[in-house]
Amino acid sequence: MQRIAIKTSRRTELVDITRRIQEVVQQSGVKSGICVVYVPHTTAACTVNENADPDVARDILATLADLIPESGNYRHIEGNADSHIKATWCGQSETLIIEDGRIQLGRWQGIFFCEFDGPRSREVWVKVVPTG
Amino acid sequence: MQRIAIKTSRRTELVDITRRIQEVVQQSGVKSGICVVYVPHTTAACTVNENADPDVARDILATLADLIPESGNYRHIEGNADSHIKATWCGQSETLIIEDGRIQLGRWQGIFFCEFDGPRSREVWVKVVPTG
Amino acid sequence: MQRIAIKTSRRTELVDITRRIQEVVQQSGVKSGICVVYVPHTTAACTVNENADPDVARDILATLADLIPESGNYRHIEGNADSHIKATWCGQSETLIIEDGRIQLGRWQGIFFCEFDGPRSREVWVKVVPTG
Repeated sequence: MQRIAIKTSRRTELVDITRRIQEVVQQSGVKSGICVVYVPHTTAACTVNENADPDVARDILATLADLIPESGNYRHIEGNADSHIKATWCGQSETLIIEDGRIQLGRWQGIFFCEFDGPRSREVWVKVVPTG
Repeated sequence: MQRIAIKTSRRTELVDITRRIQEVVQQSGVKSGICVVYVPHTTAACTVNENADPDVARDILATLADLIPESGNYRHIEGNADSHIKATWCGQSETLIIEDGRIQLGRWQGIFFCEFDGPRSREVWVKVVPTG
Repeated sequence: MQRIAIKTSRRTELVDITRRIQEVVQQSGVKSGICVVYVPHTTAACTVNENADPDVARDILATLADLIPESGNYRHIEGNADSHIKATWCGQSETLIIEDGRIQLGRWQGIFFCEFDGPRSREVWVKVVPTG
C-alpha cells in the first residue's frame, strides 16, 4: 500500500489526483490488474468525473451544498455533519482497471479527492492488485 | 479487460446488463474471484438494484430528477451538468464476488448501466480477478 | 466467500460491522490484499464513516429521510421505494485494503451495514483477495 499526501486549501474542494495515482501504478511495475484508491477520512471522499471543464467540479460541490447544507438540524456538534454525509454520498473508494501498466480511464475522466471539511492535510491510500 | 457495447435510447435510463456481465465471467473460466464493472463515461454510471419490478428503476430516476434537476443554476454550459452530478451520485464502478464460476447476486439483484445523458453509444469495461 | 448474518431492529439503522469483518480477514490468514464487502439486498447497503459519535449515523439517516421521504410519488407499490433509492445512494459494496493481516482504516472510520427497510434478517458477503 502506498500513501499519497494531499494538502487542501478550501472547506470543500475537488482535487485532481489522476497523475499521482498513475505514478503509483507505474512504479509498481504491474501491467494488468486493478487499483484500489481509498480515502481514510470520514469527511472526505473520492470520485471519478470530468477533469476537462472545472465547472463540473464546481457544479457538483454547489449541488451537494444545496442538498446537504452546512447548517442544518444536525445532532453531531462539531459543525461538520454535512461533511460526513457528503462523504457517504461520494464514497471512500474507487476501484480502477489496469492494462498496459496504466489505469484505464475514459477520455474525459479524472480521479478526484473530495474535500468536504478542509482545509486540511489528508492522505489517499493506493493498493495495486496484479492479475495473471 | 473486456469491453461491452451498450446502446441507450433515452436521456435517462437504467439498462439491465446482468446477463452480459455473467457471460464475460463465464468466458473467463474463473471459478472464484472478483469482478470489477467500470463505466468509462462522466455522464453515466452503474448500480446494483432490483430487476424484478421495473418501477424501482423508474422511481430511482424520478427521485434523482427531483433532487438534481436538468435545468438548474449550473455553470457547466453543455446542458448536462445534472448528468455529471447524477453520475457521481451512483458511482463509476461496482465490485462483485465470483464463486462457482458466476457472479454472486442477491435474489432480487441485477446489475444496471445508468444512462444520464443519452441516447448514446456507450461502453462498460469488465475486469475479472481470480483468487486461489 | 464468507457470509455474515445480521439482525436489524429498526426500519432504518446503521449497524457497525467493523469487528466482524476484521474477524473474517484474520481467519483467512491473508496478510496483504483487498477485502470486498458486499450486500446482497436491494433495500440495504454498506458504507464507511465515523463510529466514534453515534450522532453521525443518526444525521446521515435523518438527512436521507428528508431528501428521499418514505411517502412520495412512487410507482413501486410495496411501500419501500425510498429504501431502494437510499440503497443506490450508499452502494452495495466497499473495497478495503488489507496490510499486516488487518483491514486498514482511518482513525475514526468504521464499516457500517445500512438497513433501509427493516427490521429484517440480513447477510453481508465478504471476499478476501490476497496479493503477492
